[in-house]
Amino acid sequence: MKFCSECAGPVSLRVPEGDDRPRYVCDSCCTIHYQNPNIVAGCIAEWEGRILLCRRAIEPRHGLWTLPAGFMELGETTQQAATRETLEEARARVELDALYAVFNLPHINQVYMLFRGRLLGPDFSAGEESLEVALFDRDSVPWDALAFQVVAETLKLYFGEQPGGRYGLYVGDIERLSREPLRYRTRYL
Amino acid sequence: MKFCSECAGPVSLRVPEGDDRPRYVCDSCCTIHYQNPNIVAGCIAEWEGRILLCRRAIEPRHGLWTLPAGFMELGETTQQAATRETLEEARARVELDALYAVFNLPHINQVYMLFRGRLLGPDFSAGEESLEVALFDRDSVPWDALAFQVVAETLKLYFGEQPGGRYGLYVGDIERLSREPLRYRTRYL
Ligand SMILES: [Zn+2]
Ligand SMILES: [Zn+2]
Repeated sequence: MKFCSECAGPVSLRVPEGDDRPRYVCDSCCTIHYQNPNIVAGCIAEWEGRILLCRRAIEPRHGLWTLPAGFMELGETTQQAATRETLEEARARVELDALYAVFNLPHINQVYMLFRGRLLGPDFSAGEESLEVALFDRDSVPWDALAFQVVAETLKLYFGEQPGGRYGLYVGDIERLSREPLRYRTRYL
Repeated sequence: MKFCSECAGPVSLRVPEGDDRPRYVCDSCCTIHYQNPNIVAGCIAEWEGRILLCRRAIEPRHGLWTLPAGFMELGETTQQAATRETLEEARARVELDALYAVFNLPHINQVYMLFRGRLLGPDFSAGEESLEVALFDRDSVPWDALAFQVVAETLKLYFGEQPGGRYGLYVGDIERLSREPLRYRTRYL
């Protein structure tokens, strides 16, 4: 951020009076421009014991597999965002059952909110941001070709549930320990 | 938003190519300025069967009671945000046990994430944004002087739990039906 979105004046990074951390503050009109983490909402959509994954047609991680998920938009709920992303990326209709996992990714200022759900039918196909879409069980998941650590963590949790048991609700923090090589640590509340 | 925060050029509200909703797009450098909902993280902090509420020293709802909660900051987890807000608003140290409730407030583009926790001791006092801080049980909660609908919903859920039972995890949507008179509808997933 270099300029004020209200008056086009220059902004400075400084601690406003009464605050305790630096913000972008307009030198002209004094507007404080707060920045906050974003929610990524997504879905574990099951059909006859298998779940839906999408192979990414976009960067980052083009060609790798992910759960349908994306940035929550203004005016919607997290459930609407999860359902919309599943429709957009996998052309699939889903009914949500419950919140399943929340992951904090503080190094990129994202909070994933992943819901469990059921496909309303076996109809799905690649949306514009997907190369292909398919159903996987635990043994067929492309574990070495998953796009994101948060997806790997979620699938490990989900396929680790006791058959016929009660699903958990997980809150995890995924911390990036290093970039080269890329290493993460996940801790659960 | 009137000007581009990258180049100070004017922005227009229009649907970018490949997108499906209007965004603020810079007429000069073509930067797309996305806007997304914010997370409000907070805490139900218990001490000997009573929970901590803060009476607000700031607008909106000056003088009314609320749970310690506030906007999540860049670089932190939702749990860190909830713990920090409890420290700032109630000068109280808390250990979180679990996520308890998620509320979507689409009319103001906020998602509340409220954690259950225990005070580490009976030490608390009003922070800068509070007039007073106190512990309440179900019968002493100032039900007619709560600051926000989301606080009322959360306290109803929390004090409605079975004694000695297992706590639930709730995902609710609070919809504002009208502004005058102020009326809401809450639905749970
Ligand atoms: Zn300005
Ligand atoms: Zn620009």
